[in-house]
Amino acid sequence: MRCARRWACLTDRQEPPHEQPADRPAARPTGAPTVDSFALRTIDRAEPADGEIVVEQQWLSLDPYMRGRMNEGKSYAAPQPLGEVMIGGTAGVVRASRAAGFAVGDAVVGMGGWQQWWVGAPARGLWRTVDTAHVPLSAYLGPVGMPGVTAWYGVERILEVKAGQTVVVSAASGAVGGVVGQLAKRRGARAVGIAGGAAKCAHVVDELGFDACVDYKAHREPKALVAALSAACPGGIDRDFENVGGAVLDAVLARMNPFGRVALCGMIAGYDGAPIPLAAPQLILVSRLRVEGFIISEHPEAWPPALAELGAAVADGSLRYRETVAEGLAAAPAAFLGMLRGEHLGKQLVRLA
Amino acid sequence: MRCARRWACLTDRQEPPHEQPADRPAARPTGAPTVDSFALRTIDRAEPADGEIVVEQQWLSLDPYMRGRMNEGKSYAAPQPLGEVMIGGTAGVVRASRAAGFAVGDAVVGMGGWQQWWVGAPARGLWRTVDTAHVPLSAYLGPVGMPGVTAWYGVERILEVKAGQTVVVSAASGAVGGVVGQLAKRRGARAVGIAGGAAKCAHVVDELGFDACVDYKAHREPKALVAALSAACPGGIDRDFENVGGAVLDAVLARMNPFGRVALCGMIAGYDGAPIPLAAPQLILVSRLRVEGFIISEHPEAWPPALAELGAAVADGSLRYRETVAEGLAAAPAAFLGMLRGEHLGKQLVRLA
Repeated sequence: MRCARRWACLTDRQEPPHEQPADRPAARPTGAPTVDSFALRTIDRAEPADGEIVVEQQWLSLDPYMRGRMNEGKSYAAPQPLGEVMIGGTAGVVRASRAAGFAVGDAVVGMGGWQQWWVGAPARGLWRTVDTAHVPLSAYLGPVGMPGVTAWYGVERILEVKAGQTVVVSAASGAVGGVVGQLAKRRGARAVGIAGGAAKCAHVVDELGFDACVDYKAHREPKALVAALSAACPGGIDRDFENVGGAVLDAVLARMNPFGRVALCGMIAGYDGAPIPLAAPQLILVSRLRVEGFIISEHPEAWPPALAELGAAVADGSLRYRETVAEGLAAAPAAFLGMLRGEHLGKQLVRLA
Repeated sequence: MRCARRWACLTDRQEPPHEQPADRPAARPTGAPTVDSFALRTIDRAEPADGEIVVEQQWLSLDPYMRGRMNEGKSYAAPQPLGEVMIGGTAGVVRASRAAGFAVGDAVVGMGGWQQWWVGAPARGLWRTVDTAHVPLSAYLGPVGMPGVTAWYGVERILEVKAGQTVVVSAASGAVGGVVGQLAKRRGARAVGIAGGAAKCAHVVDELGFDACVDYKAHREPKALVAALSAACPGGIDRDFENVGGAVLDAVLARMNPFGRVALCGMIAGYDGAPIPLAAPQLILVSRLRVEGFIISEHPEAWPPALAELGAAVADGSLRYRETVAEGLAAAPAAFLGMLRGEHLGKQLVRLA
């Protein structure tokens, strides 16, 4: 037996986390979660049984969907069980294997959770070996992983982006948004980002190659935000990849062209509390829009073509991406909460080893 | 010259309508319009020029879209010019013709407006002759006209209703809604209406053959409306044909099944004033819905297949419909306003001759 550490979801803010037994029922967060919503535990590391592998995890992916998992109630995924290891995508190296198809030393990506070691049977689809000769291991959690495939599916299958269209994406400096704009550009469209702050907007335009980026924090008034969008999109908006919702989505809808489409990928603006209403839903009718929600995990058929394009584009350097790295497992909750507040750039990762 | 009467849109409530010159600029209605928003005029009836016909109009169709035309600002159609004859679908008989394809005595339908006589060149698509041997003339303004084709397009092309699905339609006792539910039933789906009042709900179930109908006026509290919908849709809602918006749409979204679709055809709840927000747009993401607005006039290719099914079903009596008839042109404004308040059943018509 060796020791391994992992983070569980607790969410009770009254008692310090180190006093929580692992199986206690606890209250769900009612507002923004805090670091005390999580508990770091040291456990015995299991030995692999027949059919199992041992993964030394090197990278943990932090993603907005995890916030939804922390809530009870209707969402697109089952709630995170309290007291159990937090769900999360990870990348690492196989250190022991009793499973066919996995050899010691293989680079792997999977759903290993917020922990240093993952031990278990690598069910098909949940773990796969990857080639790190041309694509860095961490990229399999970003542009060549779930965020990239999410962007690809929205652009290709929901929005069906065509040359000449104007494509807007919110949270444009994030792991998904940054890929959305670049995929739109690859298809001959005009890519306009929405992001919070001048630094993020500069990154989106200067490093990622978007045509324009609107700083929503510089336009707090709804009319000002609409005006800024109008200036960035003189021909109106044909396609919107929506990661934020709230006032940002309201402003985009006001500038959508007839027969435009909205891919609803996230509504992070409302994750912490009361839902944020859509101010003018009649615009969907007036402009004959199609608004469609999707969750990438439900479209496994999209992964192979998406990964083919994304992997090649990362390998040849044409697809740019940024990583924000927190060091060590202990830093995960603070990094996660910072990501929800938009304090990162690009893909938020935790380096585990 | 003969005399003819017609209604123009005015909308100024300060001065009585008979004092308004025809070409005056006037304010648009800021709340619910009144009968004083209209002016009845007697004009000289023109003689037909070469290429023109004279139609004695027998039926005027009153439709919710007309309310949108009365507003200035962004909508899916140009605003109704003030002082000019109100737009409207009509059916009548050709009394004189100097146009090829139209003979004296022909039954015709077209966009003749709120007036007794229509004189002009029957541009292709705007006027057509119809067969009244098996379908009553007035039905070409209802189930075999724009409302019916609207229902057909939503059911067939937007919702793609399939057997076994549960289809909800709001304003179910109206000209569009009544056809929606019956078309859904013809495709093997369960049809559930939403309507205001016990009488309308009884009509929807007993006369139109819906499986159930929820009286939204009996469930003013959002939670009560959701509960009533749940009871009427024990398997959840797969498809929604939305004519109303507001609290009704909020309740429907709460009960939509994953991958459900909403055809946004009208949002009459918000026509008179401030837009009504969508309370929980995150449900579009959570339930992976597709919400799509459409306007039937933009889909001329749908009319022939739609009219084929609808005409046959009215002719053989399998498609039921109800008409509410106001007598005489002078009754048009009051009938229109009553329709907007939901005081009618089925198709609201004005008998002109």
